[in-house]
Amino acid sequence: MTKNRLEAFSDGVIAILITIMVLELRVPHGSDLEALRPLVPVALAYLLSFIFLGIYWNNHHHMLHATDRITGGVLWANLHLLFWLSLTPFVTAWMGENDVAPLPTALYGVVLLCSAIAYTLLQTTIIRAQGPHSRLAAAVKDDMKGKLSMVLYAVAIPTAFVERWVSVAIYVSVALTWLVPDRRIEAGVEVEKEPRAPAHH
Amino acid sequence: MTKNRLEAFSDGVIAILITIMVLELRVPHGSDLEALRPLVPVALAYLLSFIFLGIYWNNHHHMLHATDRITGGVLWANLHLLFWLSLTPFVTAWMGENDVAPLPTALYGVVLLCSAIAYTLLQTTIIRAQGPHSRLAAAVKDDMKGKLSMVLYAVAIPTAFVERWVSVAIYVSVALTWLVPDRRIEAGVEVEKEPRAPAHH
Amino acid sequence: MTKNRLEAFSDGVIAILITIMVLELRVPHGSDLEALRPLVPVALAYLLSFIFLGIYWNNHHHMLHATDRITGGVLWANLHLLFWLSLTPFVTAWMGENDVAPLPTALYGVVLLCSAIAYTLLQTTIIRAQGPHSRLAAAVKDDMKGKLSMVLYAVAIPTAFVERWVSVAIYVSVALTWLVPDRRIEAGVEVEKEPRAPAHH
Amino acid sequence: MTKNRLEAFSDGVIAILITIMVLELRVPHGSDLEALRPLVPVALAYLLSFIFLGIYWNNHHHMLHATDRITGGVLWANLHLLFWLSLTPFVTAWMGENDVAPLPTALYGVVLLCSAIAYTLLQTTIIRAQGPHSRLAAAVKDDMKGKLSMVLYAVAIPTAFVERWVSVAIYVSVALTWLVPDRRIEAGVEVEKEPRAPAHH
Repeated sequence: MTKNRLEAFSDGVIAILITIMVLELRVPHGSDLEALRPLVPVALAYLLSFIFLGIYWNNHHHMLHATDRITGGVLWANLHLLFWLSLTPFVTAWMGENDVAPLPTALYGVVLLCSAIAYTLLQTTIIRAQGPHSRLAAAVKDDMKGKLSMVLYAVAIPTAFVERWVSVAIYVSVALTWLVPDRRIEAGVEVEKEPRAPAHH
Repeated sequence: MTKNRLEAFSDGVIAILITIMVLELRVPHGSDLEALRPLVPVALAYLLSFIFLGIYWNNHHHMLHATDRITGGVLWANLHLLFWLSLTPFVTAWMGENDVAPLPTALYGVVLLCSAIAYTLLQTTIIRAQGPHSRLAAAVKDDMKGKLSMVLYAVAIPTAFVERWVSVAIYVSVALTWLVPDRRIEAGVEVEKEPRAPAHH
Repeated sequence: MTKNRLEAFSDGVIAILITIMVLELRVPHGSDLEALRPLVPVALAYLLSFIFLGIYWNNHHHMLHATDRITGGVLWANLHLLFWLSLTPFVTAWMGENDVAPLPTALYGVVLLCSAIAYTLLQTTIIRAQGPHSRLAAAVKDDMKGKLSMVLYAVAIPTAFVERWVSVAIYVSVALTWLVPDRRIEAGVEVEKEPRAPAHH
Repeated sequence: MTKNRLEAFSDGVIAILITIMVLELRVPHGSDLEALRPLVPVALAYLLSFIFLGIYWNNHHHMLHATDRITGGVLWANLHLLFWLSLTPFVTAWMGENDVAPLPTALYGVVLLCSAIAYTLLQTTIIRAQGPHSRLAAAVKDDMKGKLSMVLYAVAIPTAFVERWVSVAIYVSVALTWLVPDRRIEAGVEVEKEPRAPAHH
């Protein structure tokens, strides 16, 4: 039960975040193409954040699938992750409405980095609670993909002040590496039976 | 479990979309009929989108009822559908607040069309994951209703620039064809035992 | 499953409605009592609507407890109810921000009346789907409380144009009659075993 | 079922509250550090309220874990708690946007105090419904932590008009005492088997 409620609560928060972000796509006053143009960067930033939140939901889901015990520490590590994710709509809108200016673009990376760190902390907390024969530890292994993502975010943050589009390119690339379907799943392995490595993010 | 969480997440997103749309019905400053009048088109657009989202929720529900396996591909196809649905509040408000101007009316159709395509993709992904004896494929059959809806949306989009009310009439007509109760269900067949053909949309 | 998902979706919509209403309590610019004063009627209107939505959630919950079959008609009757409930935040804010002016107060009653009618329709749809030995029909009996509420709303609507405070008094009174705990439940009868008469509203 | 739905509804409301609070972090117009500065107090107030709502979610969860019977009174006591919690976004924003001015800071404490009282009422209602051998009563014992929190809130409210930062310090301290992990849980006791004392808050 505890696990179900943790999942339901997390799903609720992520579902709301993904949805209220769209409220930043403020309805323009005019009704021609001209009126729509300033919304293009906002819409693209929304798309990117939608994908990031989708990835988190996806991976969170797989991670909890391999989790059997929920301790008080896990509950708080999960809330910590949700806190960073909850800042996504703010940084998305700030970056989108300012034409990807350096500071907003860097701050977007900060939220991505902190979310990734929070995810890793949650993962570590669950593994520690599971003890030596942790199912999750076996699935995650060395979590190279997760670690690489964090390094890339850390690089993208200062880069935003030099070449902001490089930072954006990094964010998009990281998102794509997580989007690409896991081969084992595509091969038709049922998620129910052999959960995808509940990797970082 | 995976399926439950997919349903819960989708329900959450659709419930939020259907509800935050109403926030676009901004409270007028006056308190007489005059103050209410500009809200009429917004309210009608809201009603139409409420019905569309209700249809999607309904059909999504039936489709997943006939689904046994959730693969990684299904998760992403579902998020793809939710992305297009999440644009509904924006286009609804834009169309409603601009007296059904051509471009907003066309864009409304674009979101409807993309949502319908995303729904079909999700359906195809589930059927492919189910293999040759797919329960869903048997229920959907040739999905004439779904295909016809997409054709009508595709016609309505350019029409908006010529006769915008014709486009609106098309949107309303498509919604009505999905609203009309399925005869088998009305005949008292229990949904639990013989699910309604989980058709497109 | 169908029933669970119907409940979850309805709970989601009502939870969101009850929560986004509070967004209409706009943060004032000043920080003294003076700045807070205009919010008092809005806050009271919010409290009243919170109670109404709470009553609906409560009764919806009891009604579905006595429901075994969900047909297509039930799904749509439920969405119809949710549509009227979704207008609550709008009329609440309009009434609250206009010092309970006649038209907003009347419209508040219209939404209450339509919600009550929609609830009754949903109840009738479920009873018809259950057939002659309907558990719900036995529990509802003649539904006097529900019918009386509708009559009172219908009286309150025109009254708003003559004595608006009388209308408000009627709304408050109806809410109170539904709030008063059901004696059987207070007597300690477990809800699980002998559900409270799933009455109207 | 009744209990599940009560939990799901409460989770939904708390998830939405925690998430819409972030909407008060309004996107600034500029894109430099200067533009971000006025948001710092709002962001800190948001962080504090996020933690408070997280604590409530956590404890609500533990409390219901030790609950077997849901009566009509419990349903309403729960809605009463949700009402006070629903005012959190408003007071958070008011305090944050006014640089922790006396009145908003006091009102923040009023909402904390009323939420705490509502939580205690809910706890008492559940214990009374459980009868003499209440599992929850055994777990809560004398609820010193809960009582102390309420006393501290009651002290912080008038203090806000004299030394507002002292009030803030009290709020932060109370939050920390609830955040500190429960030693028994940290010792690895499974939540599922021996639920943490479902304490007040």
